[in-house]
Amino acid sequence: MTQLSPTIELAKQLISRRSVTPEDDGCQELMIERLAALGFHTERLQFEEVTNFWARRGTEGPLFCFAGHTDVVPTGPEANWSHPPFDPIIEDGFLCGRGAADMKGSLAAFVTALERFIEHHPDHDGSIALLITSDEEGPFVNGTTRVIDHLEARNEKITWCIVGEPSSTEKVGDVIKNGRRGSISGDLTIHGVQGHVAYPHLVKNPIHLAAPALNDLACEVWDEGNAFFPPTSFQISNVHAGTGATNVVPGEINVQFNLRFSTEVTAEQIKERIYAILNRHGLNFDINWTLSGHPFITDRGDLVDACVDAIQSITGLDTELSTSGGTSDGRFIAPTGAQVVELGPINATIHKVNERVKAADLDTLSSLYENILAKLLAR
Amino acid sequence: MTQLSPTIELAKQLISRRSVTPEDDGCQELMIERLAALGFHTERLQFEEVTNFWARRGTEGPLFCFAGHTDVVPTGPEANWSHPPFDPIIEDGFLCGRGAADMKGSLAAFVTALERFIEHHPDHDGSIALLITSDEEGPFVNGTTRVIDHLEARNEKITWCIVGEPSSTEKVGDVIKNGRRGSISGDLTIHGVQGHVAYPHLVKNPIHLAAPALNDLACEVWDEGNAFFPPTSFQISNVHAGTGATNVVPGEINVQFNLRFSTEVTAEQIKERIYAILNRHGLNFDINWTLSGHPFITDRGDLVDACVDAIQSITGLDTELSTSGGTSDGRFIAPTGAQVVELGPINATIHKVNERVKAADLDTLSSLYENILAKLLAR
Repeated sequence: MTQLSPTIELAKQLISRRSVTPEDDGCQELMIERLAALGFHTERLQFEEVTNFWARRGTEGPLFCFAGHTDVVPTGPEANWSHPPFDPIIEDGFLCGRGAADMKGSLAAFVTALERFIEHHPDHDGSIALLITSDEEGPFVNGTTRVIDHLEARNEKITWCIVGEPSSTEKVGDVIKNGRRGSISGDLTIHGVQGHVAYPHLVKNPIHLAAPALNDLACEVWDEGNAFFPPTSFQISNVHAGTGATNVVPGEINVQFNLRFSTEVTAEQIKERIYAILNRHGLNFDINWTLSGHPFITDRGDLVDACVDAIQSITGLDTELSTSGGTSDGRFIAPTGAQVVELGPINATIHKVNERVKAADLDTLSSLYENILAKLLAR
Repeated sequence: MTQLSPTIELAKQLISRRSVTPEDDGCQELMIERLAALGFHTERLQFEEVTNFWARRGTEGPLFCFAGHTDVVPTGPEANWSHPPFDPIIEDGFLCGRGAADMKGSLAAFVTALERFIEHHPDHDGSIALLITSDEEGPFVNGTTRVIDHLEARNEKITWCIVGEPSSTEKVGDVIKNGRRGSISGDLTIHGVQGHVAYPHLVKNPIHLAAPALNDLACEVWDEGNAFFPPTSFQISNVHAGTGATNVVPGEINVQFNLRFSTEVTAEQIKERIYAILNRHGLNFDINWTLSGHPFITDRGDLVDACVDAIQSITGLDTELSTSGGTSDGRFIAPTGAQVVELGPINATIHKVNERVKAADLDTLSSLYENILAKLLAR
């Protein structure tokens, strides 16, 4: 059997730990031990059931940070897997196991990239940090956002941040995420007057009242998007009214909706426009709002340029800058003023059974991270 | 204690029988015994769990019929009643008990009216019949509709029918129902394409697709009504879409609606117009229809005139002809070509706890029925 690369070896050690959200199961101590040998100072930050750490090497700015998570999503029935999900193996050139792509492979690549970079550049510019949580896949209450609060409280600012989320689609490095749309949800209740269907003059049917307003919301053009974002989108996910009895007009209708929004509108503007549409229809309503994240964008600059150049020189690919897809912990880091990019392996199998990543891609990823560090911090 | 009138005495005997749908509990045999003494020939018609009878006196036309039901709705917790619901008493001039108003009081008034009328007019014109079921409050599958089928099969036609449903609102005789609206329900499913809210270009949101079509349905003017009926009304009773997850656009929406319709439109025309509206919006949909009853109307004529005149002469009231409210078994009798009117006691307490009817009203009702018989059949 051939010798595995240090990145694959570390990834296997991480995958073998059953760190289903919010469990860490020793992953972080494994990383901390390796980082300590490189001169990192580590703060362990346990918030409720969530394990986090902040490790930093150096005291000067600028501050480069790798951000990621040790937790993984549940496996589903393990019998559905070709191999036990927490017993990693290499098969046909793929490293297989839960978290191989999302994102224990990236964590291993962080560590090995740092080991090589620091060996060659022990006196690098600025500082290097890692922000690692065990609650990225969970409720994200006691994870990255709490660590950021902790840093903000002492005015410790990240300059550049690479999040190891699996951003690639066909080949490693083909896509990086330099921003994410915002996400805001509303839980809308429209009130009417209940009664018997046979006595229409005594009811105010909330379903009838809602229909034209929901149509206006669905047809609204919120913005045109911009160079970084597609147009803001509105989707109703749930609508419920009625008791099941077919002869009763219900007293209210409940509508749940979500908007993924660009930097062309703010959450407050969205709320105002939705209130205006509902009020234009003379509705009696309540809305409970949930803001999952503001949109953020990292324009061309030191960090994006370093990523683009590193990918070009190592893989030959012209990477695509994208803001599509769901949310990530980048939304908690970007508001501090940091430049944030997500760069990680191919995301085809994440959250699925038989999650896997091409083993060679993790070595490539480690080289990319090392090269980016060199572009930004090599003296 | 004063002697009770024959009508109140018989009503008490009927109420004391626990004939919750579809039970008859001996009510019909009690009636049959009294009718046999008057020369009625009775057919007992048991269909499944439902007890029915058809009793007729005479073989000639025209055929006058009293229609009604011996079953009652459940009492709910008997502890909520001031008096046991199947132990009738007279209190403050009211006969109290389940079925007092709906419609054992009317059944007693039928019988005593017939007893007096036949005593005075043993050789009346035409024939007199009773059509009595124990399933008016239930699924109405094996009740009146089956008896009508039985009569239709041998071409036995009712000319005039009085249904003893409690039609009165403030004073006995103030309102009679000379028709009912039709009722048709639709169970509509509109199909879209399910997906993640973050990828709006990959979904076809059935809630968004439905909204303008539902608005058009709600705004549609189906007709203007006519002298007998209010305009046809459309009401959505239930609408459901979504799995509960707020980040998933569902694949379909289910909408349940009902129309109460006048004689200005037919059920088929309603269906065609709804199909046209949904097709105009380019929707992919299915509808399951339930037709509960066609509308019927009994215009001024022998029966309505006899009722109006009887009420005027006995109570002094100018009765109101109405087609409002829910459905009744009249919908099964009218399609045979019969003139059908509902005339019964005040409906304020029907289906409620402490159901009651003014005892004197049942004597008035018996007089009304007798007077109507005299107007139509006295030689």
